[in-house]
Amino acid sequence: MVDQQQPQPNPWDQIGTSFVQHYYKTFDTDRGQLASLYIDVSCLSFEGFQFQGKKAIMEKLTSLPFTKIEHIITAQDHQPTPDCSIISMVVGQLKADNDHIMGFHQCFILKNTGDSWVCTNDMFRLAIHNFG
Amino acid sequence: MVDQQQPQPNPWDQIGTSFVQHYYKTFDTDRGQLASLYIDVSCLSFEGFQFQGKKAIMEKLTSLPFTKIEHIITAQDHQPTPDCSIISMVVGQLKADNDHIMGFHQCFILKNTGDSWVCTNDMFRLAIHNFG
Repeated sequence: MVDQQQPQPNPWDQIGTSFVQHYYKTFDTDRGQLASLYIDVSCLSFEGFQFQGKKAIMEKLTSLPFTKIEHIITAQDHQPTPDCSIISMVVGQLKADNDHIMGFHQCFILKNTGDSWVCTNDMFRLAIHNFG
Repeated sequence: MVDQQQPQPNPWDQIGTSFVQHYYKTFDTDRGQLASLYIDVSCLSFEGFQFQGKKAIMEKLTSLPFTKIEHIITAQDHQPTPDCSIISMVVGQLKADNDHIMGFHQCFILKNTGDSWVCTNDMFRLAIHNFG
């Protein structure tokens, strides 16, 4: 019997993957609950518009004009940053209400606040911008 | 005569935009010169493969199998991070040699080392992954 050990994923891959899974699951079921992931210094860039702070970010996210949304992740990458945060880049597809499926890309910086990870930076773009 | 003042761009937009312009111009003309932008703690995720340190990153970038490449930026976003770095997300298109034009997305974290900005984190994905 061969003693085979699976390589352990890096902690940043584990934490980043868990965050990303939690984020989109929450977004798709009850996005008002995302508030616990943002803090007052958090920044959101959404399709080029900038929002700062938990309150402004949540006003934007909860006022988006669809009632049903589903995200599917195509690829995700995670890295440690010099200040012990984690940067995550997600590529995926989403379907809002009865619209066509659209590609999107999103970046997060995740910071450890002691007993939880919060999102200090969030950048979102639809992939439709990528075709002239 | 109306006294109209243009709004001043944020410093992170100015620095991020300058970096992005310099990065792709250098990549497209002589990518060996990108070495000055990376340091020994820098991380690169390139199509899911991870490289750490200036040497490993430059070996990867300079061994990419094309002789001619052109990047066109479609959209870019920049934000300040809690540790006074800058996170930049770029969406664009590239053409390598005689291949078809492809979409790409890339994230950078830029850190001020005193007299210059270096890239501590770099994540790159072709957009072809985004279509099943």
